[in-house]
Amino acid sequence: MERAKRTFGFAFVIVASLVASTVTFAQTDWLPSWNDGPAKQAIITFVQTTTDPKNSQFVPPEQRIATFDQDGTLWVEHPIYTQLIFCLDRVPAVVKQKPGLANVEPFKTVLSGDREAIAKLSMEDLVKIAAATLTGMTVEQFQTEVKSWLATAKDARWKRSYTELTYLPMQELLKYLRANGYKTYIVTGGGQDFVRVYADQVYGVPPEQVVGSAGATKYAYDKNGKPILIKEPKLVLNDNNAGKPESIHLMIGRRPYAAVGNSTGDRQMLEYTRAGDGLRLAMIVLHDDSEREYAYGPAQGLPDTKVGTFTQALYDEAKKNGWIAISMKDDWRQIFSFKQ
Amino acid sequence: MERAKRTFGFAFVIVASLVASTVTFAQTDWLPSWNDGPAKQAIITFVQTTTDPKNSQFVPPEQRIATFDQDGTLWVEHPIYTQLIFCLDRVPAVVKQKPGLANVEPFKTVLSGDREAIAKLSMEDLVKIAAATLTGMTVEQFQTEVKSWLATAKDARWKRSYTELTYLPMQELLKYLRANGYKTYIVTGGGQDFVRVYADQVYGVPPEQVVGSAGATKYAYDKNGKPILIKEPKLVLNDNNAGKPESIHLMIGRRPYAAVGNSTGDRQMLEYTRAGDGLRLAMIVLHDDSEREYAYGPAQGLPDTKVGTFTQALYDEAKKNGWIAISMKDDWRQIFSFKQ
Repeated sequence: MERAKRTFGFAFVIVASLVASTVTFAQTDWLPSWNDGPAKQAIITFVQTTTDPKNSQFVPPEQRIATFDQDGTLWVEHPIYTQLIFCLDRVPAVVKQKPGLANVEPFKTVLSGDREAIAKLSMEDLVKIAAATLTGMTVEQFQTEVKSWLATAKDARWKRSYTELTYLPMQELLKYLRANGYKTYIVTGGGQDFVRVYADQVYGVPPEQVVGSAGATKYAYDKNGKPILIKEPKLVLNDNNAGKPESIHLMIGRRPYAAVGNSTGDRQMLEYTRAGDGLRLAMIVLHDDSEREYAYGPAQGLPDTKVGTFTQALYDEAKKNGWIAISMKDDWRQIFSFKQ
Repeated sequence: MERAKRTFGFAFVIVASLVASTVTFAQTDWLPSWNDGPAKQAIITFVQTTTDPKNSQFVPPEQRIATFDQDGTLWVEHPIYTQLIFCLDRVPAVVKQKPGLANVEPFKTVLSGDREAIAKLSMEDLVKIAAATLTGMTVEQFQTEVKSWLATAKDARWKRSYTELTYLPMQELLKYLRANGYKTYIVTGGGQDFVRVYADQVYGVPPEQVVGSAGATKYAYDKNGKPILIKEPKLVLNDNNAGKPESIHLMIGRRPYAAVGNSTGDRQMLEYTRAGDGLRLAMIVLHDDSEREYAYGPAQGLPDTKVGTFTQALYDEAKKNGWIAISMKDDWRQIFSFKQ
């Protein structure tokens, strides 16, 4: 009898812990850095609805595609895009190889270190700098350059690696979607080869799921006859505005069920996503937290910005089309994984 | 005792069947349509070596990429490419919409049904036909056209759907690689949008793993204001020759560990694959079975062909570079899943 009792007790512990873990599982909060509110609720409703086989809006696993803009959506884009800092930082190395550039604009201005003058460089100048710093090497050499830059470069405000400036709530959203069978893609106006270097480590997004602006490569042979791919100064994909849905079709071939962006460059991706059948999630990040991050754009009554342009027209379209606004200030309990 | 004996007997049956199934498992032949020989052995050695964590040539799962040409590698390409038949079959529908084309070459010749004259059409003519039949519609309308054509069209020799003309040994190879963690891609000179329509169903390869020649799409709005993507007559990716490794970099961003092709259009993909570190598998299908399929190319001492060009230079490079030749005649026990 004593033994039977002990056995029963043991069985009870097992059952109780099973029940407890089931309850825990049901209550797991995948989005602990999100405050309760309409944005968090919209995400949870979307995931639960599209993954419930009994729901009429169920989405088969192979069709679960979610696309994320990067700059200003997954990580900080102000005061200027990270990739642009990389390009500016690379100018001295490029000039060392081609000394003739030292007295040619815009390289001369960059070398001067005059921040005010650099900030005034035209788009044409920036394209010249990008061509000089991002091309003319093999794809492997470029990867090595980016890796070594990322290992040492720090942003001016937080004194941290750029890869630490990713938003914790978005990291949670990426993981939550993946845990529910969604394939997460980055669809960025930034350089595809640049983002691919760190996307796996930083976001858990493998190279083949990074869609970005992309230059041509040229197949050639090195002096030992080994095949190489050289990065060319010729744009193949301009992954902004209409280029985003066009690239999504080219690279993925399926319409996303969820898309997240933060600027006018994401408008068409969000429209295209919402235009599909069934339940689709389109979200737009509002930079309205001047203390913990930055505040810019019309939603805050602030002047618009060249970096992460967000017009009043976009905001109006968002409201009209049922896109979900994510307020950094109100919806995000914590912005970065480090303490601020 | 009698009961114990029966119990023992029962247990013996269970153990025996477990042992049997373990042995069966260990001996599972993933490639039953392949004859024993150097090609089959090279595949098995490659898979076992690169998936054995104790081997110095182990490949981490996320890097396991295998790329397959389609026409002549995964399915029949003679006497002409399937997609070209689709284009020719679509000409009457196009002329119905634009009657002016009926008296314009090359459409006039196609409408005449004169097979000899059609076979003599120039590359320039074929480009005109492709532009007229593959563009000017939404991507969804195009998918519908391809699906409905595939459902009824039959090839002239076997009187079967084109999708049945896939090689059974290659289907087994795709499955064997996937069962060992390899992500299988199609990298085809054929149209990306065309192949994506059936690749999942026929090869188990989802749309996002089909890399092919691709035209531009244009983001626009239909009369109800709904966003659409229109197929444009402008080539973005020419996925042949050097275009194959270039597209692999653009679309996948990783160098394959295995690649299979059958013509000069695959040469650079095979070179690029083999040029990577560690054990890499490059294979080339020889069409040397005039009875069960077709025989063409220099390896058979036959005149070369415009469809699936295979030069003596390619054959020499294959032998010199350690590419594995797959003889349809000698290496494949069965060619199609249907009885011949």
